[in-house]
Amino acid sequence: MNYGEKYSKLGNALEPSLIGQILKYASDPDAISFGGGVPDASTFPAKELADISRELILNESGYVLQYSSTEGDLGLRKEILNLLYRFYGIKGLTEENVLITIGSQQALDLIAKVFLDERSYYIIDDPAYLGALSAFNTRFSEFVAVPLLGDGINTDLLEEKLKILEKNGEIRKVKFIYVISNFHNPAGITFSPDRREKILEIAERYNFFIVEDDPYGALRFEGKKVDPIFKLGGQKRVVLLNTFSKVLCPGLRIGVVIGDKDLIKKLALAKEAAVLCSPALNQRLAAEYLKRYDLLEHLKPVINLYKRKKDIMLEALKKEFSNVEGVKWTKPEGGLFIWMTLPNGFDTMEMAEIAKKKKVFYVPGQAFRPSGERSNSLRLSFCLPPEEKIVKGVKRLKEVVEIYFNQKSNVLI
Amino acid sequence: MNYGEKYSKLGNALEPSLIGQILKYASDPDAISFGGGVPDASTFPAKELADISRELILNESGYVLQYSSTEGDLGLRKEILNLLYRFYGIKGLTEENVLITIGSQQALDLIAKVFLDERSYYIIDDPAYLGALSAFNTRFSEFVAVPLLGDGINTDLLEEKLKILEKNGEIRKVKFIYVISNFHNPAGITFSPDRREKILEIAERYNFFIVEDDPYGALRFEGKKVDPIFKLGGQKRVVLLNTFSKVLCPGLRIGVVIGDKDLIKKLALAKEAAVLCSPALNQRLAAEYLKRYDLLEHLKPVINLYKRKKDIMLEALKKEFSNVEGVKWTKPEGGLFIWMTLPNGFDTMEMAEIAKKKKVFYVPGQAFRPSGERSNSLRLSFCLPPEEKIVKGVKRLKEVVEIYFNQKSNVLI
Repeated sequence: MNYGEKYSKLGNALEPSLIGQILKYASDPDAISFGGGVPDASTFPAKELADISRELILNESGYVLQYSSTEGDLGLRKEILNLLYRFYGIKGLTEENVLITIGSQQALDLIAKVFLDERSYYIIDDPAYLGALSAFNTRFSEFVAVPLLGDGINTDLLEEKLKILEKNGEIRKVKFIYVISNFHNPAGITFSPDRREKILEIAERYNFFIVEDDPYGALRFEGKKVDPIFKLGGQKRVVLLNTFSKVLCPGLRIGVVIGDKDLIKKLALAKEAAVLCSPALNQRLAAEYLKRYDLLEHLKPVINLYKRKKDIMLEALKKEFSNVEGVKWTKPEGGLFIWMTLPNGFDTMEMAEIAKKKKVFYVPGQAFRPSGERSNSLRLSFCLPPEEKIVKGVKRLKEVVEIYFNQKSNVLI
Repeated sequence: MNYGEKYSKLGNALEPSLIGQILKYASDPDAISFGGGVPDASTFPAKELADISRELILNESGYVLQYSSTEGDLGLRKEILNLLYRFYGIKGLTEENVLITIGSQQALDLIAKVFLDERSYYIIDDPAYLGALSAFNTRFSEFVAVPLLGDGINTDLLEEKLKILEKNGEIRKVKFIYVISNFHNPAGITFSPDRREKILEIAERYNFFIVEDDPYGALRFEGKKVDPIFKLGGQKRVVLLNTFSKVLCPGLRIGVVIGDKDLIKKLALAKEAAVLCSPALNQRLAAEYLKRYDLLEHLKPVINLYKRKKDIMLEALKKEFSNVEGVKWTKPEGGLFIWMTLPNGFDTMEMAEIAKKKKVFYVPGQAFRPSGERSNSLRLSFCLPPEEKIVKGVKRLKEVVEIYFNQKSNVLI
């Protein structure tokens, strides 16, 4: 039979992402990819994890190879609370405030399931994290997209949009706002303390909650640590997402939701119906690593490595693009991404065809737009390529921009 | 804020399962639990997996600790095809016909997402596997429940029900039938070759597909292996689900979908939005185990162990219940479960209160009913308790039945 005839609305809507198609060429050994947000594998504590894993399987096979609780390993949840306290001074939480998920992608999927219906609204930054868009899109909800400025979302515009919803009697359909407050993916910017407070104030006034995603917070290169919105607003207003993907390794697939304990219970029910439970081995591996080693110490050289790569990329961008009118880029204080904007009229999706030929890869801004509209921006990830390739890759990017500009000019003339 | 105010229709519908509440007392060391379908941990090849895991993390950290493909590790997919050929003689498939999932629960969730809408129908056996019910319930579809007989579902009744749907012009809303063809969970029965062919014939006639779940097929104690419906009907009509949970260990969380390659691509897109990818370490562990050792050889003593436990339970049931009128139970040729039916008027959910006091645990039949209606049946799992506890537990169960019967008689008089 033709399965396509039987697809649900969602089944029909799921389509291969444009990025996948672009990035599949990035594995060419001559290619230089600024595409994926994939950590440098040299930062993984392989030796330590190898020894721990053998020990755990030998000594605790009845636990690590067995079904385990949907909420997650208790020891890991304790270690996470300990980290939150050490890193952000967040306290007053218990294990019941923590849910372990299959990467933070699953946290997004569970939140989408538990809160979003077709006639719901969520608020999202523009550009926004692609994984959040793909999870939320499965619910066919309405959304309010709010442009990002250099220090967070445009909260004035957000208020204007909310006032319209209020006037139309739709404000109670607004479920939550989703933000990445530190070293935004894809935009590289960090929300200022003022923006964080303002978002909290607006969320309280209009009665929706905040999903604060913080995968990169521990990867700060410079500048002052800013309190998470979760710390300001507490668990009754804010749900905090985290992950070990960028600070330990992505392969364990461990995401974390920190929030109100009744909410955690509800998300756990959704998780049970989706995957039953996370692999116990992976959770014990992370927990035992955290117990035996100091993750924040482990991160010091990792942060230095990414900072160096970031500096090299900023330097190269300055060299190649500083005298090209209308081109600008963000200067991240941490994380993995730089957001580059080309002159008006550029279409970075269209330009990707040229980039493919020149063997330099980036993610076109369009992929990050909640509306899916064309974009003159692009995301550059500096975490994976070796340092010399960063310089070379930015040179290629300059060529790509020039070729594209010349093509465009011809068309315009 | 009160998160409950913001729940979606699904968020509101998700409620803790009755089983969870019953089984939480089962961890009492004096308790005897016939509750969970949890494999005996002594069957896990811990030593082998411990060594492999250390080796993999040391030698392939850039792969096993990194993000990996949504479809799953290529080597594992090849090993699975090899197993399918060896065990069932299924051939003509490539890796593109295989999707790795987070346990087979995720396969059920993905199928539900890709095919079911609120106005869809699916067909399901009654009693049915609880995990399938919980995954399908998230889509708020209609269902057609078809009672199980000793050799499969009642195909005559299925045809009657389909005729009614056809008459009402609703037949094209029927998406699939879900069956566990070998050693059914919870019913312990195996679909006969005739029933399998009949189901296939009906599916072809009414144009829906078959989801054949086969987690226990390799755990056959006696009787003759039966060809999977997938082998009879092929990938254009049947999707085959499998898992390593019962034959290797559940803790790796590796489920498998075998099917049409376009369908696999579509399910992979749904998986990407839900969890991005499975942990590479877990997949390489399974793949490497399958490469170095012979899973079917490993299973020989495992099968003997479960067969012995099954025989002990059947013997104990015969001893305690053979002269109690109206009590019967299935005699599984493999798998982990026996389905026991008490006289009409018994309510095994109500009886569970007495069982809790007597410290013997089972899963009430109600948990497996698509309609959620009361049931006079119950599921007994013989895989986990040690042999002497099986005998003791069945004795306790007899006492429970007697106490409940006496209480009921009083009420009836």
